[in-house]
Amino acid sequence: MRFFSDNAAAACPEALAAVAAANRIDAAYDGDAYSRRLDGAFSELFGTEVAALWVATGTAANSLGLAALCPPHGAILCHRDSHIQNDECGAPEFYTHGAKLMLAEGIGAKLASETVKTLLGAIRDDVHQVQPAALSITNATEYGLVYTPAETSALGELCRERGLGFHVDGARFANAVASLGCSPADLSWKAGVDALSFGFVKNGGLSAEALIFFRPELAEATRYRRKRGGHLLSKGRYLAAQILAMLEREVWLRNARAANEAATRLAEAAGSDRLLLPVQVNELFVRVTPDEAAALRAQGFDFYDWGPGEARVVTSWDSDPADVDALAAAIRAL
Amino acid sequence: MRFFSDNAAAACPEALAAVAAANRIDAAYDGDAYSRRLDGAFSELFGTEVAALWVATGTAANSLGLAALCPPHGAILCHRDSHIQNDECGAPEFYTHGAKLMLAEGIGAKLASETVKTLLGAIRDDVHQVQPAALSITNATEYGLVYTPAETSALGELCRERGLGFHVDGARFANAVASLGCSPADLSWKAGVDALSFGFVKNGGLSAEALIFFRPELAEATRYRRKRGGHLLSKGRYLAAQILAMLEREVWLRNARAANEAATRLAEAAGSDRLLLPVQVNELFVRVTPDEAAALRAQGFDFYDWGPGEARVVTSWDSDPADVDALAAAIRAL
Amino acid sequence: MRFFSDNAAAACPEALAAVAAANRIDAAYDGDAYSRRLDGAFSELFGTEVAALWVATGTAANSLGLAALCPPHGAILCHRDSHIQNDECGAPEFYTHGAKLMLAEGIGAKLASETVKTLLGAIRDDVHQVQPAALSITNATEYGLVYTPAETSALGELCRERGLGFHVDGARFANAVASLGCSPADLSWKAGVDALSFGFVKNGGLSAEALIFFRPELAEATRYRRKRGGHLLSKGRYLAAQILAMLEREVWLRNARAANEAATRLAEAAGSDRLLLPVQVNELFVRVTPDEAAALRAQGFDFYDWGPGEARVVTSWDSDPADVDALAAAIRAL
Amino acid sequence: MRFFSDNAAAACPEALAAVAAANRIDAAYDGDAYSRRLDGAFSELFGTEVAALWVATGTAANSLGLAALCPPHGAILCHRDSHIQNDECGAPEFYTHGAKLMLAEGIGAKLASETVKTLLGAIRDDVHQVQPAALSITNATEYGLVYTPAETSALGELCRERGLGFHVDGARFANAVASLGCSPADLSWKAGVDALSFGFVKNGGLSAEALIFFRPELAEATRYRRKRGGHLLSKGRYLAAQILAMLEREVWLRNARAANEAATRLAEAAGSDRLLLPVQVNELFVRVTPDEAAALRAQGFDFYDWGPGEARVVTSWDSDPADVDALAAAIRAL
Repeated sequence: MRFFSDNAAAACPEALAAVAAANRIDAAYDGDAYSRRLDGAFSELFGTEVAALWVATGTAANSLGLAALCPPHGAILCHRDSHIQNDECGAPEFYTHGAKLMLAEGIGAKLASETVKTLLGAIRDDVHQVQPAALSITNATEYGLVYTPAETSALGELCRERGLGFHVDGARFANAVASLGCSPADLSWKAGVDALSFGFVKNGGLSAEALIFFRPELAEATRYRRKRGGHLLSKGRYLAAQILAMLEREVWLRNARAANEAATRLAEAAGSDRLLLPVQVNELFVRVTPDEAAALRAQGFDFYDWGPGEARVVTSWDSDPADVDALAAAIRAL
Repeated sequence: MRFFSDNAAAACPEALAAVAAANRIDAAYDGDAYSRRLDGAFSELFGTEVAALWVATGTAANSLGLAALCPPHGAILCHRDSHIQNDECGAPEFYTHGAKLMLAEGIGAKLASETVKTLLGAIRDDVHQVQPAALSITNATEYGLVYTPAETSALGELCRERGLGFHVDGARFANAVASLGCSPADLSWKAGVDALSFGFVKNGGLSAEALIFFRPELAEATRYRRKRGGHLLSKGRYLAAQILAMLEREVWLRNARAANEAATRLAEAAGSDRLLLPVQVNELFVRVTPDEAAALRAQGFDFYDWGPGEARVVTSWDSDPADVDALAAAIRAL
Repeated sequence: MRFFSDNAAAACPEALAAVAAANRIDAAYDGDAYSRRLDGAFSELFGTEVAALWVATGTAANSLGLAALCPPHGAILCHRDSHIQNDECGAPEFYTHGAKLMLAEGIGAKLASETVKTLLGAIRDDVHQVQPAALSITNATEYGLVYTPAETSALGELCRERGLGFHVDGARFANAVASLGCSPADLSWKAGVDALSFGFVKNGGLSAEALIFFRPELAEATRYRRKRGGHLLSKGRYLAAQILAMLEREVWLRNARAANEAATRLAEAAGSDRLLLPVQVNELFVRVTPDEAAALRAQGFDFYDWGPGEARVVTSWDSDPADVDALAAAIRAL
Repeated sequence: MRFFSDNAAAACPEALAAVAAANRIDAAYDGDAYSRRLDGAFSELFGTEVAALWVATGTAANSLGLAALCPPHGAILCHRDSHIQNDECGAPEFYTHGAKLMLAEGIGAKLASETVKTLLGAIRDDVHQVQPAALSITNATEYGLVYTPAETSALGELCRERGLGFHVDGARFANAVASLGCSPADLSWKAGVDALSFGFVKNGGLSAEALIFFRPELAEATRYRRKRGGHLLSKGRYLAAQILAMLEREVWLRNARAANEAATRLAEAAGSDRLLLPVQVNELFVRVTPDEAAALRAQGFDFYDWGPGEARVVTSWDSDPADVDALAAAIRAL
């Protein structure tokens, strides 16, 4: 009964069927019929003209998005606990050719616009310091919190004022949209976002993420960087097909809702005292003693030790309801 | 009837089935049961201990392989018509942080060891020039020629003498092995090769290539570079499963043989006068007048205009025998 | 009366005379008679075999030193207020091809080995995080504090235990040695230091710094990186000559002592209540109200506004005793 | 009697005196009185508004100039024998983050616009190839030939048509101007040049080159790159002062003329049969048998063995007339 991470879940039937359906010869790279539909499909979803590029990993999406917004001598402002800082082995530095990540604090890996302002205020405007070029947030955050449209807009406005590009790591963007009940547009271009890593893998895809540019001209140089990074798969149609299948009939939302709901049930079982943070998407951070953690593991539950006395429990689109019930009961019984 | 490139062919049933079979939760990245079997499977195939890493593209495999062999201030010797020079948008320069590709000539994109020696002889041994660090060849070449074990060994020996790393771009390695009837070992470590990009995508895979290190210690830093390049897929099991399925029961060889045989039939139809080069694997370079090319296209045959009066025809593992027959007849009728 | 920074002071007569004396044709780059004496001169000074390379700036020395110790996917541990983090526009990231600076805290820009241990403890040992490769400290620090031989050794030991390279930014190394009355060896190789940026410019040079490797083999690749970075001046003899002239008859120590003594006199004038930190070399951080700062400026004293209510006063080898007396009196009179 | 290279000559009295005169405290980096006069001085010289940055080496000037014109995924077209290709250890690749140098042929290291057109014609316009971004020529070339204003303009026009930046490596720009008797403007912005590395070191400076941007906005990001490359010397006034001193009273032209005239005298002595190329500036390429070369060396003449049976003889601003007479006589006597 695996609650370790959503990044190792199965692929949903629609995604898998789309791969099989795309299994005939077509133009290579992104010249195939599926890939050529991506811009349109996402433009429709977001209600504005976007450029959409598939890549195979969230790390690639994030890094390419940031490279479009930040020169080598620039800085990317982000949270100290962000994925781009802690979990990508320096991929943003690699793709930007050495930009500097400047770190800020905030509960639940969330950045407030005041915090970003303070960080900006500490950077001297001279050639001896790298100059701020982009802000990157994660929505939902690494701790399972969401930025509301208003919170996102506040950051977007700050970016516009200070001439910063605005990137959102949306590995769990679907979960955030599902949780907030808003539109994808509300959490992106309407809030001033320039580039969004729209995650599909954690949400039931096999191997496809979408990098969305709300200023489509940013895609131009990115197409070269994608190739140069080795991310232009020759049979890209399998990636595009997965994404299209998950956009159709809102599979992406359905999957995200399922994951979120499973987490909500576990949160109710845990009760607020045990929770380090509110549960807004599909992650719970639960206070457990070493003995309690061991007891849960002994019952067959797999999860991540987040820190001393803390467990991270992640649900996914395909979390088995019986497993969720069992874990809920086990938590209640602690 | 598509003879444009093997890089857009369908995936073979074994690969597709393997993806479906791997569609259940497992450890993420390369911690899953499939990925953990790769080193062993390739060590067995090559008859020596190797380290094997999956990546999603040949460009990634080549660039990571080269980055393991060449420092930023080094040079990679390769053919003027090599894929790494002409078709990867500078990915080797990106992954090596700016190494220089030094180009040599040779018929059919093939390098002779004498040519490499001459190139080496022209490089001054001082800090003002980048120093040669690696040799990279493509087997089979971009023009469909193979390096024999003896030819490969001659280059391997030169590399050892001069302290160069030796990389083989094996996007069509399977076709070369099938054509030569030798063992994979004969074209790799026994001939002094340090790193091999072993291609599966052109040969019936969906999205997986294997980067093989015959000095397994080279894999260590490469694992970080792979992550940093955004190439560590979280559901890597789909890639590993494809590769394992194609290694089993020699599917990789069966597929390569089918592609080669289709090309051989077309070569016989063309006759040696029309052929720019001998046909050794699954590519033909055919002399055609503009009118002849147009006539073939009018009959529904798709191929690549290689140069003035030249057409490139590529077969693949799944080239339809009826299509091959039809094209053979059409060529004969020119 | 300029107490803004020592980095804009005049050059000392010995350095200037050495440049003039070197003004005749000789071999280019570092093949000249002066450059060839550097290794020997520094080996003698340090009492061990070292490799010594001249460069024109401290930023180049630091970056090349770090590039010799840290791969692109590695991390450099340093103080949040270090020059390499705040004042070099990302030069370490440029020369290391994107390594990450990991920041620690400590009073007066000084790192304790316990703090470094804590930082190390927070880095997971997996491919998703850049791995610690080097520690860099500044001696004397950006706040004018010195690391004693014992403090340096404690850090050196930690580096050895954890397999980290150890770099010292010694822009004011001379001032530290002069202040501590120890030998250069005590603050470098005897304490486990691998690479030292030995500053001469702030201490009376025109344009030369020395990068010292206590593991001489580290210089090999560095020679290529220096050329590649555009730092191999064709008339390098002017740089080498400056350095040699300042090593002779301990001009470097004489200059550093003069700067330190001037600062000591100012510190005595200020009294401990006004001082933010002890004055150990040639920098004072003084509490002043805006009115007091304005009053000092009105009397012709130039200094740096360090923060609200804080002034940085820097003396140099050539601080005019009369100016120092005047400033001391002015501070007393506040 | 040294005719090995002009890059190791003495500094001229004006440059040395300027360094001494600048030896008093001033603002650091490029905030001093000398540095602030550079833009104006060069704008006057060129008769148009330019931005001028000092750096310490030609390699730095070239690399920073190219980095302003070419993205990492771009290509720089240049001659196979250019300094940026052969003598800078990959500095252009380092500063551009991996751009590709695409090489063309031409007698005397000179590029014809037809040759450049052919090279451009061979580059496919797709994401699989790096795209041409800049042209770089050397004037005077590495073989001592000059591009006339008309030849330069032809290349400049081609650059404008194809959207390429145009860089001139002017390590011996002064010699070219002196030889042609034209204005600096005729060989630069009037001919479409965007960036010029204006050399002073070979022409009698100690350690200063000027990077001139004829589109001043290109200097903005370059200021960051210069700092990031470690090329913003804290006592930059010594560099600016040298350059200003050599611009005043046309010292730069006087020096270049002296070097050119010495070469002309040697060329007359050699006679056209011995010369591989016309002598247009201060370099001669002379046919000599091994015995002849040995005979010259035995008489105390130092020069560079260019190739089998070829000697390179370089004069400089300070070539001793007696030495030149002696060498002329010795060549005549061969």
